[in-house]
Amino acid sequence: MAAGQVRVREAADTDCGDVMRMIRELAEFENLTDQVKNTEEGLKADGFGANPFFRCLVAEVPPEQRNPNGQGIGSKILSKVAEEALANGCSQCRLAVLDWNQQAAHFYKARKAEDLSAAEGWHTFLFNTAALKELAGK
Amino acid sequence: MAAGQVRVREAADTDCGDVMRMIRELAEFENLTDQVKNTEEGLKADGFGANPFFRCLVAEVPPEQRNPNGQGIGSKILSKVAEEALANGCSQCRLAVLDWNQQAAHFYKARKAEDLSAAEGWHTFLFNTAALKELAGK
Repeated sequence: MAAGQVRVREAADTDCGDVMRMIRELAEFENLTDQVKNTEEGLKADGFGANPFFRCLVAEVPPEQRNPNGQGIGSKILSKVAEEALANGCSQCRLAVLDWNQQAAHFYKARKAEDLSAAEGWHTFLFNTAALKELAGK
Repeated sequence: MAAGQVRVREAADTDCGDVMRMIRELAEFENLTDQVKNTEEGLKADGFGANPFFRCLVAEVPPEQRNPNGQGIGSKILSKVAEEALANGCSQCRLAVLDWNQQAAHFYKARKAEDLSAAEGWHTFLFNTAALKELAGK
């Protein structure tokens, strides 16, 4: 059984409440709750309008399988992401991983992901809202 | 004068040849030419179809100003990017910078960008095409 009962599907705008909850839960895990600026309404506007900024997949997991480790749910989602990426002409897929999150790093490396920051020295730079306003002269 | 004669505008599909050339020139500077997979036609399809994957700004620079350092052209482009980001409801803007490219890092830091990889430990992970195919079972 295991992941056999898990269905990965395209998200609908009615999923945005649950997606927003999971974004907050991930931010709590990462100790970055102060960086969550979006809202359920924002997600709906960004992802389900005339020209969506993002696409989203959701995994429907039966309640008895919701202790996620070792059930193959992550692999199933990642497999679907890869399928969609290739179908849309992407030649690569990039992810952001915190250096202390070794469980995540191990999961991706075991599936042939390369740590580009370690291999080539890529750093992510961020302009926050205040910096953007200053740049824009506002 | 300087950047006064520089106009930053939305790209058109007819700019894709020049944009592709600049992508190649940047990759040469970064010693990463083998990573350039896109083509002019690919850019047109990705950015100027019914549901574009990206938006692009171009700076029109008079020939006599094309030695870019210190002319304010980069600042002018970044200012327009910030303006567009805020107009589209973005709360932040992220960039990827190679650690040896100190000129770029200095440019962004002087404009209040934060090096998130240094500050919080974010690493960029990459699945290349072969890894994506394996994930998708193809």
